[in-house]
Amino acid sequence: MKLVLIRHGESVWNKENLFTGWTDVDLSDTGRKEAKTAGELLKAENYDFDVCYTSYLKRAIHTQNIALEVMDREWLPVIKSWKLNERHYGALQGLNKAETAEKYGDEQVKIWRRSFDIQPPSLEENDERSPRLLEQYRYEDKDQLPLAESLKDTIARVIPYYEGEILKQMKDGKRVLVTAHGNSLRALVKYLDGMSDDEIVGVNIPTGVPLVYEFDDNFKVIDKYYLGDQDAIQKKMESVANQGKAK
Amino acid sequence: MKLVLIRHGESVWNKENLFTGWTDVDLSDTGRKEAKTAGELLKAENYDFDVCYTSYLKRAIHTQNIALEVMDREWLPVIKSWKLNERHYGALQGLNKAETAEKYGDEQVKIWRRSFDIQPPSLEENDERSPRLLEQYRYEDKDQLPLAESLKDTIARVIPYYEGEILKQMKDGKRVLVTAHGNSLRALVKYLDGMSDDEIVGVNIPTGVPLVYEFDDNFKVIDKYYLGDQDAIQKKMESVANQGKAK
Repeated sequence: MKLVLIRHGESVWNKENLFTGWTDVDLSDTGRKEAKTAGELLKAENYDFDVCYTSYLKRAIHTQNIALEVMDREWLPVIKSWKLNERHYGALQGLNKAETAEKYGDEQVKIWRRSFDIQPPSLEENDERSPRLLEQYRYEDKDQLPLAESLKDTIARVIPYYEGEILKQMKDGKRVLVTAHGNSLRALVKYLDGMSDDEIVGVNIPTGVPLVYEFDDNFKVIDKYYLGDQDAIQKKMESVANQGKAK
Repeated sequence: MKLVLIRHGESVWNKENLFTGWTDVDLSDTGRKEAKTAGELLKAENYDFDVCYTSYLKRAIHTQNIALEVMDREWLPVIKSWKLNERHYGALQGLNKAETAEKYGDEQVKIWRRSFDIQPPSLEENDERSPRLLEQYRYEDKDQLPLAESLKDTIARVIPYYEGEILKQMKDGKRVLVTAHGNSLRALVKYLDGMSDDEIVGVNIPTGVPLVYEFDDNFKVIDKYYLGDQDAIQKKMESVANQGKAK
């Protein structure tokens, strides 16, 4: 049994180096190309799925739609949940990463970006960016919706969703594709690889590259690998790691 | 309570005037523009939805995706079912409408296209076009999948799906968008308007134009109208009606 994870392609805000979080920005042209490449890799290696999961955010939804289109699998069921959304970046959402680093210092930004359990400054309840006020979350239990999250907080909502939904599908024999975000996927990687809190904060998942987990009959991970050109993947990981530096 | 129906935009085969049926052809550039216009009309008139339905065919799936993208509603749940697929055109699938009319006569083609209960020639069980052999229908009960359908046959699968799924959502207070096909939507229109078998075969639903039904508290239809420029809609209906003529 295999599980495939894809981090969405570059968004228009990744490109401008802004803290995005739950801001619902679209893919850039580069991001659309990355999504297409992800679909082509999966198709070339004869991957197929029975059910697909993604977040409520259009950069992930479009990445998955484009990959499914390339694979001629538009008809597959797609389940969307905010539980797979990016980490909520609180009041940092919309700020430029380099400017924030200049203002607060590289170290503070690194803590906000890479610490395990320190939340960024929280949104006010009545901030127009609050998910409790957005149409997009109108069906949800408002009290559950975060106003800022540490990676630990993100893990605390991703893993129950994985165990209650995604793993359940796999136990039913379903081949699952999950298209999500840097930190919601980090949550899964930490859990699946059994990483420590310190280890996971150093992990950078490249965008638009299918990450495959193989499981034994007891759903224990037995192998893990990225599909595609391994050198190019290495460069992508480094480029993500460098985004938060002032310059 | 309102229900909105959209017939998918022009496909690459509509353009070439081929019998399509369940052949999974993509939208043409014109079709993509029609889908965008449908989304813009819905957005301009402040329509919103809680759940969306479409078929297993990419021309309908893409039409809905494009409309939802324009409406900034990618995150809405989308449910796909073959029960909303186009009428299965049997062994006519892939044949040119004008050529078929030259060969069999306008009258025979008109019967296949517009009679209520006469099926086109059926596919053989082992024809590579048979849905029983296609990946796309691998999750379905093979015996239920048609090898050719009259409009009556299409109605016989669309209406139970409407009553069991779509109407149920409306009774739960959900606003529903259905993006489907000429004949699966004809099935709904016949049912909702209480039309006779003779009446429905003369109805031509224009592509990419939102068709709104309004219901009273007992889910009886009280009004019905197309959104947009009424003259342009009239021209579209006539153009669809003329497709099957030899010239």
